[in-house]
Amino acid sequence: MHAQYIVEIDKTLVLMAELVGKSISLATFALLEDDLEAAEKVIASDKLVDELNLEIEEMSSRIAALQAPVATDLRLVMGSIRIAGSLERMGDLAVHVAKQVRLRYPNPSIPAELKETFAKMGHAASKIVEQTSEVITSRNTSLADDMKIFDDTLDELHRELFTVVLSSNWTHGVEAAIDVTLLSRFYERFGDHAVSVARRVIHIVTGEPYGK
Amino acid sequence: MHAQYIVEIDKTLVLMAELVGKSISLATFALLEDDLEAAEKVIASDKLVDELNLEIEEMSSRIAALQAPVATDLRLVMGSIRIAGSLERMGDLAVHVAKQVRLRYPNPSIPAELKETFAKMGHAASKIVEQTSEVITSRNTSLADDMKIFDDTLDELHRELFTVVLSSNWTHGVEAAIDVTLLSRFYERFGDHAVSVARRVIHIVTGEPYGK
Repeated sequence: MHAQYIVEIDKTLVLMAELVGKSISLATFALLEDDLEAAEKVIASDKLVDELNLEIEEMSSRIAALQAPVATDLRLVMGSIRIAGSLERMGDLAVHVAKQVRLRYPNPSIPAELKETFAKMGHAASKIVEQTSEVITSRNTSLADDMKIFDDTLDELHRELFTVVLSSNWTHGVEAAIDVTLLSRFYERFGDHAVSVARRVIHIVTGEPYGK
Repeated sequence: MHAQYIVEIDKTLVLMAELVGKSISLATFALLEDDLEAAEKVIASDKLVDELNLEIEEMSSRIAALQAPVATDLRLVMGSIRIAGSLERMGDLAVHVAKQVRLRYPNPSIPAELKETFAKMGHAASKIVEQTSEVITSRNTSLADDMKIFDDTLDELHRELFTVVLSSNWTHGVEAAIDVTLLSRFYERFGDHAVSVARRVIHIVTGEPYGK
């Protein structure tokens, strides 16, 4: 049985992860459908993620000062600051995708032949953040290993995209090449952050040294 | 007069900032001179930055548990986790630059006509991290405003580079365009993190709400 303040931190982190999950799904939808309204929604909703990030820090500071947590609880209280930071950054990356849609609107942000690649990236990103919530809630460290699969998928899609952009069949010019490279990088970084959250949860649960 | 543990945290953060400053300077040198040895040094030296990052977290956890810091000291202890995280990420970005040099070696990583732009980016990045150390040591919140100037310079150079890459005079093809865009983004993100460190120090000193 966890102390009430641990339950509160967990709840806030899971809420952040859920919001970030919605953001990346909606950002991907906006990207694939050139939907400005969806893009604007992603951008507007990031404010709440930022607020929760600050809330976590205040909460952790208050708890550290008043409750003198030890062992696992202390690791969670301190670690939650970094977990919230990673989730906040994931929210920013969803916003970057959405802003790219807004920038190019009413033109499509990506060439038609790359839609499938970005659909896959969006899927992997949504799955990975879903599992992030799961790991936080369940403390099931084996889930963290599963996440690695989605992260590998994202890395692979990122590399695949380079092959497409650099092939002699690429007819969309330099600007489109840069656009899709940066977009792809946003998804790839999103995955990295999700994995780092999962590793941190493992560190909290097991007390094992935290690898990068 | 600060408590001994605050002095220790400060010292470690400043050491991290100094190491990161050396890394970005050396990475820029490697980039401008196509110097593989310098690039390898940057990559190897990042291990120490990562270790200090973990040390800060352990230190902060220990202090939170044993010393029950309050007010400014509590904000520093909790905030130092995020400051260290930003500095660690700045180290990663210097490594990204160095790895790009290694990837393209013995070919140059950037076209000759962009050397001046990257030299300026490197200069701004070095200055901004220098001032990061200063802000941590001196708690001089006005320095944090000065840093904004170097961050603006980095943003401006980043935009300038897009103009060069997208102009009809660009003869280096898509791959080089992507390379320099990503490199430029690494410097731009480096500046963002430095500014976020400075804002956090202001938050610690003044207790004012921490803006993004």
